[in-house]
Amino acid sequence: MQLDHFREHASLGLVDWTFRGIGQVVFQNSPISGAVILFGLLVNSWIYAAICILGAVTSTLTAVILQADRSLIRDGLFGFNGALVGLALVAFTSEDFRVGAVPTPAMLFYLLCASAFTTMAFASIAAILAPHKVAPLTMPFVLIGWLFLFVVLKFDAIDAGPMAKPISPDQFSYEAPYNLTTWYMGIGTSIGQIFFQDNWISGYIILIGIIVHSRIAAGMALLGAIIGTLVAALYGGPEGAIRDGLFGYNSALTAMALGGVFLVFTWKSFVYAIFGAIVATWLWASVAIFLEPIGMPVLTSTFVIVTWVMLLGQYAFKAVVPVPPAQSTTPEENRERHLLQSQKI
Amino acid sequence: MQLDHFREHASLGLVDWTFRGIGQVVFQNSPISGAVILFGLLVNSWIYAAICILGAVTSTLTAVILQADRSLIRDGLFGFNGALVGLALVAFTSEDFRVGAVPTPAMLFYLLCASAFTTMAFASIAAILAPHKVAPLTMPFVLIGWLFLFVVLKFDAIDAGPMAKPISPDQFSYEAPYNLTTWYMGIGTSIGQIFFQDNWISGYIILIGIIVHSRIAAGMALLGAIIGTLVAALYGGPEGAIRDGLFGYNSALTAMALGGVFLVFTWKSFVYAIFGAIVATWLWASVAIFLEPIGMPVLTSTFVIVTWVMLLGQYAFKAVVPVPPAQSTTPEENRERHLLQSQKI
Amino acid sequence: MQLDHFREHASLGLVDWTFRGIGQVVFQNSPISGAVILFGLLVNSWIYAAICILGAVTSTLTAVILQADRSLIRDGLFGFNGALVGLALVAFTSEDFRVGAVPTPAMLFYLLCASAFTTMAFASIAAILAPHKVAPLTMPFVLIGWLFLFVVLKFDAIDAGPMAKPISPDQFSYEAPYNLTTWYMGIGTSIGQIFFQDNWISGYIILIGIIVHSRIAAGMALLGAIIGTLVAALYGGPEGAIRDGLFGYNSALTAMALGGVFLVFTWKSFVYAIFGAIVATWLWASVAIFLEPIGMPVLTSTFVIVTWVMLLGQYAFKAVVPVPPAQSTTPEENRERHLLQSQKI
Repeated sequence: MQLDHFREHASLGLVDWTFRGIGQVVFQNSPISGAVILFGLLVNSWIYAAICILGAVTSTLTAVILQADRSLIRDGLFGFNGALVGLALVAFTSEDFRVGAVPTPAMLFYLLCASAFTTMAFASIAAILAPHKVAPLTMPFVLIGWLFLFVVLKFDAIDAGPMAKPISPDQFSYEAPYNLTTWYMGIGTSIGQIFFQDNWISGYIILIGIIVHSRIAAGMALLGAIIGTLVAALYGGPEGAIRDGLFGYNSALTAMALGGVFLVFTWKSFVYAIFGAIVATWLWASVAIFLEPIGMPVLTSTFVIVTWVMLLGQYAFKAVVPVPPAQSTTPEENRERHLLQSQKI
Repeated sequence: MQLDHFREHASLGLVDWTFRGIGQVVFQNSPISGAVILFGLLVNSWIYAAICILGAVTSTLTAVILQADRSLIRDGLFGFNGALVGLALVAFTSEDFRVGAVPTPAMLFYLLCASAFTTMAFASIAAILAPHKVAPLTMPFVLIGWLFLFVVLKFDAIDAGPMAKPISPDQFSYEAPYNLTTWYMGIGTSIGQIFFQDNWISGYIILIGIIVHSRIAAGMALLGAIIGTLVAALYGGPEGAIRDGLFGYNSALTAMALGGVFLVFTWKSFVYAIFGAIVATWLWASVAIFLEPIGMPVLTSTFVIVTWVMLLGQYAFKAVVPVPPAQSTTPEENRERHLLQSQKI
Repeated sequence: MQLDHFREHASLGLVDWTFRGIGQVVFQNSPISGAVILFGLLVNSWIYAAICILGAVTSTLTAVILQADRSLIRDGLFGFNGALVGLALVAFTSEDFRVGAVPTPAMLFYLLCASAFTTMAFASIAAILAPHKVAPLTMPFVLIGWLFLFVVLKFDAIDAGPMAKPISPDQFSYEAPYNLTTWYMGIGTSIGQIFFQDNWISGYIILIGIIVHSRIAAGMALLGAIIGTLVAALYGGPEGAIRDGLFGYNSALTAMALGGVFLVFTWKSFVYAIFGAIVATWLWASVAIFLEPIGMPVLTSTFVIVTWVMLLGQYAFKAVVPVPPAQSTTPEENRERHLLQSQKI
């Protein structure tokens, strides 16, 4: 952690916090992870890379202005939901989902307010979940994302795209056969879709961004993406949706959260995480079909639902060992700390 | 309680817990109640009876594997939501709702995972509600049921039926006149529908299953079913839906929960329970019409909503005497215990 | 507070509590505010005035029967949700939204039960929010209002009107130009719409009802209404919806709640409240478009969502000073009390 002295720096601090914020989307409290991930976005589209920074800066600055807890700010915890809301609003209002479009001034103001609003939503959800020692995850993003997306199709001043991006398995052909590209593209794009990047190369770069900080987390992300892709194929999901990584991004996040980040990494939590990843795959399709009539994307809602359901009751199950969010660093350190504590007793 | 020694038995324990789990759907912590209820299902369809056992066993075993609190497991509290989810998934994917269909292997795996998932949802909702001393009721079933049902219509490998079962009052004729069969079949089927049994004889057998453990509970179930049927008729509900017991199953459960199980049975809580049963009748229709466009059934959501609304604020009302879930046994015992305590003071 | 001795009076007490209940819709614990507001309704329609009283009396009496906390009853806190539910059910079942229609006996019984049910919902939501020191606001009304509204279109005995009232910006022409009437009518009606009064004169009378008890609250209500109208116009909202006050009623309530009532009135909370009012304006349109397919009105849901999101995490932000609901009186007194306490320390 050689970069830690930046966190206290007067002007460079914000840069550090922003990069950590981008890393926190995939649970990595590391500016280097954030930088590599940002590079992954840049490879796909400079617009998304810029919006990602802008969103993270806005929500982090909002936390600074509101005088939120400085250690939370320094860990990038006020940044990741703001980044995701920015990306979502651009993704679903651009004519070309893949590269995005530069937002109009009216849309930009709207988007920045949405990012700022995630800071309040994060504090609120954290307050509600505090007694249960469960993290807000990306719920602020999902909630604010949905609330701010409903309207973009209608207001005159916000130039909504044709929502060209399919949001449900239903909108893909069920005829296309699975082939080799389905697999390596589907798995990579599953990780890319966490950041709305419909690009499998970006996905693998993001995976590298995770590896540099935690190999267990990266392994679980990859495993989750594989499970999402595989389960979808076994249950006859449409090839296009699988290749687009739509089935896999929620299961990748779920596998990471349960496999080491918020539960000590053990064989039992490993199996628990796999179960969660399977359920998250099915429920992505389920929620997608539910939301399709109103044209809303699933975002990371099934990741949040499955992970919350599997964590809120964690103290009732002796088979798993919870890691309170305030103490969670990397799966490796969480495990080491737990083993040390067990030895002491 | 002569059968209590089975609860500790190594291999027979699971049998006991499963039967209690089936009884817990209607608040009866009794293996005999469970057995009689199961007989009621068997009279209608062996498939439903088998799925009911399978669902309860799966969610109970999940709790055992996760090392949940043994006293909760022994009381069958991890079984009832699993049983209901299994029944719901078969009911709404079978061509003939009445008798159900044997699920395909893919569907079976899906169904068992859903049942297992209710165990985690039960622990989570119990954790959230713990400070308010309110039980999760059948919310795990409703939540998981909805989440897992959205998709069954779409995935290739899951052979979804035509959802032949009407799920909303709207889908029945408003012309048909009420007659004698409307009443005795409607009231019986109201109790049958708690277990998705579209069969009035099954309903009355289930009622016997309740009587053997608690006469007050059985009385309230019957009263709730009568209220559901009567209010629906007074407000012009369609005859077919009334005869099918659709208006009554939520009000039967609500009347039981408020009339003795979670509030000490007094004249005041009796009136409170009647009010709840009336509201639950209306809200079944309301939620049914709300969910109709997406083809989703109400399940027992209105029972949970009405009962939660009337119990979460229970400590604010001196007119009712709460029974914390951990202490609730039968309405008779709850009342006796309260009277004893009052005398002491 | 010369009228305070009425609050203890045996028979006149209920009159006092009811008037305070009507005032509490706009946070005014004052029978005079309630009386002026009622006059504002009467100017528009005697039916709405009568229903408003009836709803407030029903939910207040329910609290008396259930032996709820007397100080809450005396502050009118059990009245305002009941009044609003009554108004909503009449508004959306009357052929002419503007003046309403006298409900049928079946509808009246239904409406009174809904009003009574808000008392239980208020106690429940208050219990859930108690650890966070956040008020239930009008959530009981929104929740019960939606649940009871779904069905009114379908039941035989409830004569539902044609839902003639547009409920979404989409149902207005986007062609009509803005003119002077858009502004003064839009701002007035924004305040009128809080009570379902589609009448700008009623709106300004209601504003007077607020002024007599708190000038800051009235100022914030006016500012919120102006923001709602202005932001809607800047973002190209349809003229008819703006003139009808649909964009402004949630932002008026949000501005009041955050600007003095539940946060100490300072420059920082003033800016915070303005931000909230802007977001509430957008989200009214967003939720309206979301609910349009099922024909449901937004009610005050966006006010509750925005205010909760901005208050639940209040203790995480040092820039704002929370006022716990139990201590909140008027913005003026809240501020004075805070300044006194600061001096002491």
